[in-house]
Amino acid sequence: MPLVRISLQEGKPRTAIQKISDAVHRAMVETISVPPLDRFQVITEHSKDHLVYDPEYLNVKRTDDIVFIQITLNQGRSLELKKALYARIAELLHQEIGLRKEDVLINLVEVPKENWSFGSGVAQYAP
Amino acid sequence: MPLVRISLQEGKPRTAIQKISDAVHRAMVETISVPPLDRFQVITEHSKDHLVYDPEYLNVKRTDDIVFIQITLNQGRSLELKKALYARIAELLHQEIGLRKEDVLINLVEVPKENWSFGSGVAQYAP
Amino acid sequence: MPLVRISLQEGKPRTAIQKISDAVHRAMVETISVPPLDRFQVITEHSKDHLVYDPEYLNVKRTDDIVFIQITLNQGRSLELKKALYARIAELLHQEIGLRKEDVLINLVEVPKENWSFGSGVAQYAP
Repeated sequence: MPLVRISLQEGKPRTAIQKISDAVHRAMVETISVPPLDRFQVITEHSKDHLVYDPEYLNVKRTDDIVFIQITLNQGRSLELKKALYARIAELLHQEIGLRKEDVLINLVEVPKENWSFGSGVAQYAP
Repeated sequence: MPLVRISLQEGKPRTAIQKISDAVHRAMVETISVPPLDRFQVITEHSKDHLVYDPEYLNVKRTDDIVFIQITLNQGRSLELKKALYARIAELLHQEIGLRKEDVLINLVEVPKENWSFGSGVAQYAP
Repeated sequence: MPLVRISLQEGKPRTAIQKISDAVHRAMVETISVPPLDRFQVITEHSKDHLVYDPEYLNVKRTDDIVFIQITLNQGRSLELKKALYARIAELLHQEIGLRKEDVLINLVEVPKENWSFGSGVAQYAP
């Protein structure tokens, strides 16, 4: 279910991008019960002037290493689960590729279960 | 109204991409009463490792031909209409370019009518 | 908070893109109380056949200069504020780079405050 859009500056090594992809997915599996096989991501790289961020909003110091992570997922996760997800994504990205936790921006867009078709033209999650 | 983001692996012929664009729009017109002229799409092509999908989640066999279709549209379509839309998109993509129906991933993001401006700085759909 | 995706045809001068980025942000600050430092945008350029628009839907005459602006933001702005935002974005884009107001397409996706982490793995806006 989650459809994840990961946006970052161009130029990171292929292996780092792979690890970012893995870490974001693993954090969702570990904290919000996303099935391990439920993995769908679009990763895009952008030039410096096409990925715009403020370097200090809310007193968080951000750098060009910033990663935007926008996750469309089923509605209904509690605030506690969302907090656990944010913390785990930042933690794993730091652990796996040394990304500064400040450089992790996350946004969730929630939709009802019937808003997905995972192939074959069928609404697999619908009641 | 619908703003459609179509994401696929790079390398498909231009004519195939045109047909994908046409088929997705036609399915919306036929099943959920989207006006024929109400067509706005962003199509992006990605390298193999930037478009991440699971090849068997929910026992749907997917291949590198996968097409992600994320549609932002007005809220309020019934479950039956959504199911008809999913089925028709997959059917037309299969019919028009031979895409395997399993390779069609669809997600809907619903918004209220007042959340659109179609030009001139005006909220054309607002009450 | 707002995460803004700006999509346009490739080939515009770098300075024009910078002004588009500035104008969209400034309009949000002026009309819907977005904090001045709260600026996060992904700007993408597309070939002509990958940015699909209807040239006259709703009797708005659009050209290849069209700019799609999709804004994910906190829910709760009134209809009046949304209308002010649309008008101001179109006005500033016209004023700053001479963009025809008809060529400004805007869509809002609203989310609850707890759906954001602005870095450090923390839900800064959550209660």
